[in-house]
Amino acid sequence: MKKYVYGFGGGKAEGRADMKDILGGKGANLAEMSNLGIPVPAGFTISTEMCDVYYKNNRNYPPELDKGIRDAMTQVEQIMGAKFGDPVNPLLVSVRSGARASMPGMMDTVLNLGLNDETVQGIIKKTNNERFGWDSYRRFVQMYGDVVLEMKPEKKEDEDPFEVIMHAMKKKRGVKSDAELNAADLKELTGEFKKLIKEKKGADFPTDPWKQLWGAINAVFGSWMNQRAITYRKLNAIPDEWGTAVSCQSMVYGNMGDDCATGVAFTRNPSTGEHAFYGEYLINAQGEDVVAGTRTPQQVTIAGSKNWAVASSIDEATRAKKYPSLEESMPAAYKSLVDIYTKLENHYKDMQDIEFTIQQSKLWMLQTRSGKRTAEASVRIAVEMVNEKMISKDTAILRVKPSDLDQLLHPVFDPKAKKNVICKGLPASPGAASGRVVFHAEDAEAWTEKKEKVILVRIETSPEDIGGMNVAQGILTARGGMTSHAAVVARGMGKCCVAGCGELVINYNKKQMEVGTNVVKEGDWISLNGSTGEVMLGQVATMNPELSGNFGTLMKWADETRQLDVRTNADTPKDAEVARKFGAQGIGLTRTEHMFFEGDRIKAMREMILADDTAGRKKALEKLLVHQTNDFYGIFKAMAGYPVTIRTLDPPLHEFVPNEEKNQAEMAREMGIPVEKIRAKVESLHEFNPMLGHRGCRLGITYPEITEMQARAIFEAACKLTKEGVVVYPEVMIPLIGTIEELKIEKANVYRVAEETIEKYGVKGKLKYMIGTMIEIPRAAIIADQIATEAQFFSFGTNDLTQMTFGYSRDDAGRFLPIYLEKKVLKVDPFQSIDQEGVGLLMKWGIDRGRATRPDLKVGICGEHGGESESVMFCHKIGMDYVSCSPYRVPIARLAAAHAALKYRADREDALKKQNHAPIKAKASEA
Amino acid sequence: MKKYVYGFGGGKAEGRADMKDILGGKGANLAEMSNLGIPVPAGFTISTEMCDVYYKNNRNYPPELDKGIRDAMTQVEQIMGAKFGDPVNPLLVSVRSGARASMPGMMDTVLNLGLNDETVQGIIKKTNNERFGWDSYRRFVQMYGDVVLEMKPEKKEDEDPFEVIMHAMKKKRGVKSDAELNAADLKELTGEFKKLIKEKKGADFPTDPWKQLWGAINAVFGSWMNQRAITYRKLNAIPDEWGTAVSCQSMVYGNMGDDCATGVAFTRNPSTGEHAFYGEYLINAQGEDVVAGTRTPQQVTIAGSKNWAVASSIDEATRAKKYPSLEESMPAAYKSLVDIYTKLENHYKDMQDIEFTIQQSKLWMLQTRSGKRTAEASVRIAVEMVNEKMISKDTAILRVKPSDLDQLLHPVFDPKAKKNVICKGLPASPGAASGRVVFHAEDAEAWTEKKEKVILVRIETSPEDIGGMNVAQGILTARGGMTSHAAVVARGMGKCCVAGCGELVINYNKKQMEVGTNVVKEGDWISLNGSTGEVMLGQVATMNPELSGNFGTLMKWADETRQLDVRTNADTPKDAEVARKFGAQGIGLTRTEHMFFEGDRIKAMREMILADDTAGRKKALEKLLVHQTNDFYGIFKAMAGYPVTIRTLDPPLHEFVPNEEKNQAEMAREMGIPVEKIRAKVESLHEFNPMLGHRGCRLGITYPEITEMQARAIFEAACKLTKEGVVVYPEVMIPLIGTIEELKIEKANVYRVAEETIEKYGVKGKLKYMIGTMIEIPRAAIIADQIATEAQFFSFGTNDLTQMTFGYSRDDAGRFLPIYLEKKVLKVDPFQSIDQEGVGLLMKWGIDRGRATRPDLKVGICGEHGGESESVMFCHKIGMDYVSCSPYRVPIARLAAAHAALKYRADREDALKKQNHAPIKAKASEA
Repeated sequence: MKKYVYGFGGGKAEGRADMKDILGGKGANLAEMSNLGIPVPAGFTISTEMCDVYYKNNRNYPPELDKGIRDAMTQVEQIMGAKFGDPVNPLLVSVRSGARASMPGMMDTVLNLGLNDETVQGIIKKTNNERFGWDSYRRFVQMYGDVVLEMKPEKKEDEDPFEVIMHAMKKKRGVKSDAELNAADLKELTGEFKKLIKEKKGADFPTDPWKQLWGAINAVFGSWMNQRAITYRKLNAIPDEWGTAVSCQSMVYGNMGDDCATGVAFTRNPSTGEHAFYGEYLINAQGEDVVAGTRTPQQVTIAGSKNWAVASSIDEATRAKKYPSLEESMPAAYKSLVDIYTKLENHYKDMQDIEFTIQQSKLWMLQTRSGKRTAEASVRIAVEMVNEKMISKDTAILRVKPSDLDQLLHPVFDPKAKKNVICKGLPASPGAASGRVVFHAEDAEAWTEKKEKVILVRIETSPEDIGGMNVAQGILTARGGMTSHAAVVARGMGKCCVAGCGELVINYNKKQMEVGTNVVKEGDWISLNGSTGEVMLGQVATMNPELSGNFGTLMKWADETRQLDVRTNADTPKDAEVARKFGAQGIGLTRTEHMFFEGDRIKAMREMILADDTAGRKKALEKLLVHQTNDFYGIFKAMAGYPVTIRTLDPPLHEFVPNEEKNQAEMAREMGIPVEKIRAKVESLHEFNPMLGHRGCRLGITYPEITEMQARAIFEAACKLTKEGVVVYPEVMIPLIGTIEELKIEKANVYRVAEETIEKYGVKGKLKYMIGTMIEIPRAAIIADQIATEAQFFSFGTNDLTQMTFGYSRDDAGRFLPIYLEKKVLKVDPFQSIDQEGVGLLMKWGIDRGRATRPDLKVGICGEHGGESESVMFCHKIGMDYVSCSPYRVPIARLAAAHAALKYRADREDALKKQNHAPIKAKASEA
Repeated sequence: MKKYVYGFGGGKAEGRADMKDILGGKGANLAEMSNLGIPVPAGFTISTEMCDVYYKNNRNYPPELDKGIRDAMTQVEQIMGAKFGDPVNPLLVSVRSGARASMPGMMDTVLNLGLNDETVQGIIKKTNNERFGWDSYRRFVQMYGDVVLEMKPEKKEDEDPFEVIMHAMKKKRGVKSDAELNAADLKELTGEFKKLIKEKKGADFPTDPWKQLWGAINAVFGSWMNQRAITYRKLNAIPDEWGTAVSCQSMVYGNMGDDCATGVAFTRNPSTGEHAFYGEYLINAQGEDVVAGTRTPQQVTIAGSKNWAVASSIDEATRAKKYPSLEESMPAAYKSLVDIYTKLENHYKDMQDIEFTIQQSKLWMLQTRSGKRTAEASVRIAVEMVNEKMISKDTAILRVKPSDLDQLLHPVFDPKAKKNVICKGLPASPGAASGRVVFHAEDAEAWTEKKEKVILVRIETSPEDIGGMNVAQGILTARGGMTSHAAVVARGMGKCCVAGCGELVINYNKKQMEVGTNVVKEGDWISLNGSTGEVMLGQVATMNPELSGNFGTLMKWADETRQLDVRTNADTPKDAEVARKFGAQGIGLTRTEHMFFEGDRIKAMREMILADDTAGRKKALEKLLVHQTNDFYGIFKAMAGYPVTIRTLDPPLHEFVPNEEKNQAEMAREMGIPVEKIRAKVESLHEFNPMLGHRGCRLGITYPEITEMQARAIFEAACKLTKEGVVVYPEVMIPLIGTIEELKIEKANVYRVAEETIEKYGVKGKLKYMIGTMIEIPRAAIIADQIATEAQFFSFGTNDLTQMTFGYSRDDAGRFLPIYLEKKVLKVDPFQSIDQEGVGLLMKWGIDRGRATRPDLKVGICGEHGGESESVMFCHKIGMDYVSCSPYRVPIARLAAAHAALKYRADREDALKKQNHAPIKAKASEA
């Protein structure tokens, strides 16, 4: 006969933690604790298999279930020393659902089951608490009526029918809260509730506890097919066949008197990770009371209690009297608790978050699970548990969520500081910043020169603002998403940014912004939290977290494990140095366009754009050549020994000319040409969809002299350094390739200049370099086999690839992306995490086809996704050689790569084998 | 011993027409004519295989070649009755290259080979024409010096060295043209040429004819590997191994005296297709003279001659005396020519373009090939040849180039009219139009009401201009490409349009435009040729070509042959009617947005856009519902019996609000709201890349009430008609789908409304409908297997799919696409013809994956490509069910589909088999 009911309690259980498939998560964990000999209120679990049988049988149970439940209940009665339905010593139970996967809020729960007019008297006598008895009964009838008998309001907008009665009672008694009702009131309420049920359902409220139990079991199994659950499963791809289990467990109470208590605790400090037991409890209380904040919770340990008293300015005598620790108030229960938490942590080998209830001096454990913790705690606990030989290094790596590291890499607000939040935007680049508001990039620069800290506030930023962004403490924009110009540049700079804050109404003329009724003028102080998106009035104190030794240890382990190299996106020697400190193994993307904005350069750039012919352009480019050569020299030097990928000019030319009339006039004056000429040029450069316009290699094809100048700068710098004995590996990357001919033309241009320069410096054979391409146009991925005939490496530009594959402009998607995420049209923002089924398929196709042509093709990613964990893991799986991300995300990528190596080693090896890509790197290596 | 030399002439040949691979095109055709017993100057061809041997042998010939050539030359001498190198009766030859594929201009030719100081005397004596002899000799030395001895100018910019000598001679003699030099001058020149060669090359000019011949053969084989030829082959994917043949043929002359003549003729009239011999000739002339226009050519036939005289106002006596036909002047030769052309046409079974020379009364044929013809002639000849039982219907279909039909479907300018072309733009929509210039859509409408014909001239058009475009004779824009708004809408309307005319400088304020020095003011007449892109001053007379009976016959045959259905893109009942006349089998795309611009509708639309909440939007939509229902009613009725695909709202909302301040003010006045509100709304709707913005289904997801209104209009109209007994098949098409969830949401909305409405009208089971999607976002094609779970049909929107797959904005690509085409980065404009390797691969993937999910998935195309022949053939091959195009392109698509069925039947069947798509349609059927 098939087993459908699994008992637990009394130091043993028929199930185990690894039986989640048939017992559900809750049932399996309760069984596991029982097996460990930990006092858990006894109960039993009806398996998920029964759920399947139930539905296959047209909502009928096989006859053996009844016997299984009665046998299990007898066991429970024996363990708990009470009897289900007994009027003198009644056993009360809870009935809960529990599926294999967590489905929060999907199905309901029934508590205090087993109460009726007789058993309530038993409870009252047993607890010597009449109000407790009637309140429990009243709650049970209400909950059962709602969950099992489906007593719903007649119209959606009506109030819950039980609450209507409750209100009337409170009104009658002239009281405000439920707590002010006395035992008699509650008894009366119970009667009225039952009367209402009879009226509506035409049948008496079931007084037979067994009938109550079957009703609850039916309700839980039935809830598996309610609309809410079906939708949830659909959205989360949970198969209908999995089914839910039903757990039925004896009730215990922490609110029966002063020998009762309830509390929650962590086996280590969840905030710092310190190896110290930490928890809070309340005497004569229910679980909700601890978290609700209506009473001040007391500390579990003496040490914790003393620390708390100091922080709360409470003297020791008062503390010991009014707020004793559990260690002091119930030493025996405390001792049991210590034994149990130690056992649980050793068993689960992780910091546990536990819930306990002490009923009449007896300790009961209600839950254990891995505890939530801060990033700092997460790193410390993982590393210390390895040192304690509790877990392996691999486990330690997997214990820390890569994205959590973000918290450790940026300044944060002092959590104790007061905050006046006026609005919230997108948390576009983490960190904390305070400064005085300015509305123009030039003002930001001017104020900074006067030693003022500023926050640059713009409707949106453009490359013209780069100087101001660079000096500002933080950036705030009213428009644009997580991948808007402001967001991308800020993340690259490791600078705090709140973007797309739609509530801001910015008036550049008045130099002020309005948020609701708040008016913030130029010069006013504000603070930004780039990790939450909060915008606050005034100055909020910040602190700079130290990267602890544990962090370094964990990263070392990650580096020993990962198979992907991690590079950085860096446009300046400073960025390169920061990234190197964070562990970058080279540069995956140097954007050259930012270099054209500083000082004289922008003038030369504009001269080039305004030139009427090739000769004019060449003359202007000569001026830029000097600057670019110096830029590259600095970057190569900062990244000595590592590869440096440099992308040739990418943005459309109109980004380099001023759009505003005032600036056009100024430019005309500076260049000594009529403003009409400038206006006409700006007008002629206008594009309807600049994203899909005249940029990237399209510029290089139309103006080969630009590519030529850039190639010359790269190789002049590289050759000079080579002569000086510095090892450099330039990788020239052509952007926006869509056809093989584009790459041929651009490559030939770069190759010619490279060979000429190498010849000129006599460093032939000493300077290795590569010429490759971005894969960011869908067509390039599609014809990757052709592209690989010319490209020596591919770097996936997943920002643009995502834009074009989805047809989303990242600058405009703010209009509908939030709605799409809310309506679950998209599960994740594809600009944050690679869309694996769509964009990812193109990437996989591109790599497979590219390596079919060129098995040793080097492949990386330089889109923003290179610093996002799920995306890094995907890159690992499909066989990339490296990921590249902004400097501050390098540690995240390193850790994510290590996770990937531990979780998806086989996937990667399969992919590489299929691609004939050899050798398969065992671990990440330098360069 | 392998045969390398193939003789021809004297009524026989060793080669045949089907031996192009080894004899090249020219050699094979000369052999074929010889075999037919047609008098061809005898000669021989050295095979392409020798070219391969030559290169494999390090540019050496096998010994047997010499013997082969000498034997062949002996044959030629016997046939021609002259001897190579003989001083008394010399045989002169030409040496030419000829590859398997035509490679025009790739390699050079040497004429008059065999001349030296002795043989020139033989020629002079034989022709009794000293000047002819020395001129031939002079030309030979010059040509041989250039082609074989590579006498190039020392610097690129210098003049040809022989021309320098020639100039000096003319100066010395005080004459202007070569023709004024006499025999003695030419003799002197020959000597100077030879002297120069000796000076530069250090060796005498070769006087031995055999040495000359080997030199020429080397030069031709050598030219196969010159840079020009290599590049040409690369661009046209011609393998190096194919090699070139060398044809050596005896010279004949039409300029030896009055018993000589030369001419060209067509076996049927190339302009009208009339079955009548038609040609021109000149007595005592060379081939160049006929085409050069220096002398008035005479007609070959008497009938032709008389017609010509009438048209040229020449009386019969003058004609007969001064311009007799060949039929009159050389009746014997004429008779031979008639026999030969008849034989050739019967042999090649196509209208032939022939070249002939009469040397001393003897007729020689120099060339025959299929003749170029107008579209009208092409159709007539094909149909008549079937009637004459000369060719099959299949052959007739293949003889007419689908794109040529375009010429037959639009008004054209009278070819005899005078034209004053001031500039040229893109031939965006064919046809001819004259009208008075207006610069604003409202003006176009106002003037038209006053019965004025207008040409609407805009920098670019927008949907706001639709009314003006509709009434204008033609549209001219300064910006935008072949798929710009103006171009697409104009083609849809079958209206003439010249787009992207960059030379126009339009000044809306002054109401004038400048083109170079021409200033055209409002009200001035201009004319547009939409087939050439020409813009002309003044009025040019147009004519409306009749669709002849032959056209109808050919289209009937095409319909019997093709397997693809052809639908039309139509937004109005009028368009639908036109397209039906052109043979459309339904509507593949109805754009609903154009319907929102007329009269009151735009007001309701704007009211909807300005509404602050759903209730406000619904109120405005109610007004639109009435209009849309009527629109659909009309369209369904016009297409009764055929499917009609209706696309829900696609463009971004900002296209419906005015951008100009003046219009905003007017709108504010009309709607009675503050202009600030309108300005703010317009501002908030602004997008950086509208192409990738908030449009298509993204609107429907954010504002479900819009989709709902449209669905209601569609089904109200369809149900009404169904009740009236009219058969309608609505197909609702959701645009811009990129994820399966979008389609689910939109489909559910449409489905609910459809079922409600069908229920309401009681037409359940009587009205069949489908809900499907555009595939225009790359991601939709990538996840087509998912999309097909919901979509009942796919319609490829290849305009947008091309934009996103390439990352080209069609509105901006004018900046670089022309350069890309010029530099051969792209072989064809991907907006004109589907990019088969990139976009096409996505399409193929999409169909294959879609039908893997849903084998009966209906698939079509509604992008502009649906009316372009190569694209239609591609759609056939990959297994589509139908193509849809603008009404005026329907016949083109029908014919292209027939071509595809004849050429690529197996490809299609393979594709369909792979897709499990059944039944495989044998022929195109109705609905």
